[in-house]
Amino acid sequence: MAQETPQLNLSGERFRAIYHLAGPRDEAEARAHDICLEQTVEFPEDLIPRQDIREQILGRVTAFEAIAEDRFQATIDFPIETAGEELTQLLNVLFGNISIKPGYRLARFHLPDSLLAHHTGPRFGRPGLRQIVGVDDRPLLSTAIKPMGLSPQELAEYAYQFALGGIDLIKDDHGLADQSFCRFADRVRLLSDAVARANAETGMHCLYLPNVTAPVDQIVDRARSARQAGAGGCLISPGLAGFDAMRRVAADDEADLPIMCHPAMLGSFTMDPAGGIAHGALYGQICRLAGADAVIFPNYGGRFSFSQSECRDIVRGATCSMGHLPPILPAPAGGMKLDRAAELCAFYGKESVLLIGGDLHRHGPDLAENCRRLARLVQEHSA
Amino acid sequence: MAQETPQLNLSGERFRAIYHLAGPRDEAEARAHDICLEQTVEFPEDLIPRQDIREQILGRVTAFEAIAEDRFQATIDFPIETAGEELTQLLNVLFGNISIKPGYRLARFHLPDSLLAHHTGPRFGRPGLRQIVGVDDRPLLSTAIKPMGLSPQELAEYAYQFALGGIDLIKDDHGLADQSFCRFADRVRLLSDAVARANAETGMHCLYLPNVTAPVDQIVDRARSARQAGAGGCLISPGLAGFDAMRRVAADDEADLPIMCHPAMLGSFTMDPAGGIAHGALYGQICRLAGADAVIFPNYGGRFSFSQSECRDIVRGATCSMGHLPPILPAPAGGMKLDRAAELCAFYGKESVLLIGGDLHRHGPDLAENCRRLARLVQEHSA
Repeated sequence: MAQETPQLNLSGERFRAIYHLAGPRDEAEARAHDICLEQTVEFPEDLIPRQDIREQILGRVTAFEAIAEDRFQATIDFPIETAGEELTQLLNVLFGNISIKPGYRLARFHLPDSLLAHHTGPRFGRPGLRQIVGVDDRPLLSTAIKPMGLSPQELAEYAYQFALGGIDLIKDDHGLADQSFCRFADRVRLLSDAVARANAETGMHCLYLPNVTAPVDQIVDRARSARQAGAGGCLISPGLAGFDAMRRVAADDEADLPIMCHPAMLGSFTMDPAGGIAHGALYGQICRLAGADAVIFPNYGGRFSFSQSECRDIVRGATCSMGHLPPILPAPAGGMKLDRAAELCAFYGKESVLLIGGDLHRHGPDLAENCRRLARLVQEHSA
Repeated sequence: MAQETPQLNLSGERFRAIYHLAGPRDEAEARAHDICLEQTVEFPEDLIPRQDIREQILGRVTAFEAIAEDRFQATIDFPIETAGEELTQLLNVLFGNISIKPGYRLARFHLPDSLLAHHTGPRFGRPGLRQIVGVDDRPLLSTAIKPMGLSPQELAEYAYQFALGGIDLIKDDHGLADQSFCRFADRVRLLSDAVARANAETGMHCLYLPNVTAPVDQIVDRARSARQAGAGGCLISPGLAGFDAMRRVAADDEADLPIMCHPAMLGSFTMDPAGGIAHGALYGQICRLAGADAVIFPNYGGRFSFSQSECRDIVRGATCSMGHLPPILPAPAGGMKLDRAAELCAFYGKESVLLIGGDLHRHGPDLAENCRRLARLVQEHSA
């Protein structure tokens, strides 16, 4: 092997990830050191065959501090070249193997422009999405078309009422795929038409966002056909389809649709407070990097279990500086109720999407009127 | 809406999922009931607008029993139609929204042939992979090409030595993607050639499996180009690329390659003992459904933290009856050492792949000889 030893000649540019590590201190320090190896060479340090690999490829701990009892924060940087030019490999360096070890939590990360140049990110972002719906002085209003089991015709009638009542973003429930009792093509056609009809009456720009979560060889086609049918955006669950499948749709010039991102099957990443990926890094930064324009997550105090500070962390990840990537809209959801509108406006401010599902059906049979009531509440509390 | 009410006319065929739910009993019962709604209609039960939806679409608890203190097992069945014809939506019904709620763990599942008919599963499975490598009397031997930072030429020399020494499956380290210092195309060409050269000397049928984990619009092309370059299989990390991306490669007639599945970024699913997805359901059943022919997981007693019983659960999931899907090979890995060969042969039996990485470099500079030593140990303990 020794006849001609190549030399790495990396740029020296590095990206930075912040991890929260379980302690005591010596164990947390060992974890920080382990990340440097496990996420790059995955090889016993003493056996690394070339000095330049040791010097240039390994992660490096640049800061280490206690943040709570038996909990430490390590800042680790990696050469941008280890992440290649692909989201899949960037995720691998950030949290591939250490996902399998207890006591390692990815808290957040910072990518230099040289690395972000390989990532197109959100196609519209907050400013683009606001421009399309023509609303900039209040939170956007959203609801979901459900329950599963209704026919496309019935769902279209719901969509019409919602759009008539002033909802901005009407998304499919994430469980509506392409089932025999509600085919994607029929649904998209009927609901796009219904929303267009309502828009013609109201003068608003409500968007219908069908769920295009699908096999990787169909997802782009579904997004394109949704656009052709008149849909104004789409819904994707990257936990089901893969983050890169969402990225691919966001990058598609022919589909050219804003994306709402749904959290289905992502929950396990945040469940273990000592491990996994922090809420802001996952729902904020990673979903944004993967092309979401708005990111749905379970609001505090609903039927899920996120805390206020976890929700704040998502807002941070959705809006923090990430080079050329625009901020995206946080979309709290999950058992939300009309009577919390004032509270939610106060907590999230206007730069949010308020997603209210089942509760819009609870206030009498006139869905449009229920939506108007929500719209009035939100308008009132956004002044 | 009432002018003409359509009626669902589902087949009545249902698939079954087993969940472990945190208790006490009344809470666990509430969780079981919640799954029936949350994973299908995601709608308040009292507001479901049609009786046939209530009767035909919802999940049903068919068994409920205590399995430990404050821990209950619920068997829940769902109409096959809710899962559509797609892996993405099947995953959604099994564990989409409830992934975000604490205290719900998917333990295992059973799919009827009518649902499995939509899923091609492993292209080769255990019998097919054994036939290609021409070994049926012992565990297969595997190692990883690393560390990241070596040139394709250097990695090819390692691969040659490993193949010469009797390794059956030589895979890329999962961190080798398409980085500037080690391009995919160069690596695949050189390593495929190196392994072919060794095979010509040994008369064995060692396979080289490059890592094709990549953006969704490139992964199939990488697998096809790997085959064209002479690679005998490929490595995919579904946690990075998405389960359906692996499924797509497995289904590709032009690539036609056995797949080893790597656990990168899947770790969070099993980390919370009260939540997530059980080891056997995730690494066994779901990876198998998504087309893996062999599944890599962290062995007990290595540098990761799986227990013996969790490893046994993976073997169960890899080999249990799943209709037309062949069994696949469990591939324990992660800090494995030569001196554990006897123990591993006893624990896993011959129907396994023993994956030893860094430790093959620890026993002197003659890698081929180190491999021969491993092969002798395994042969001896597989008699």
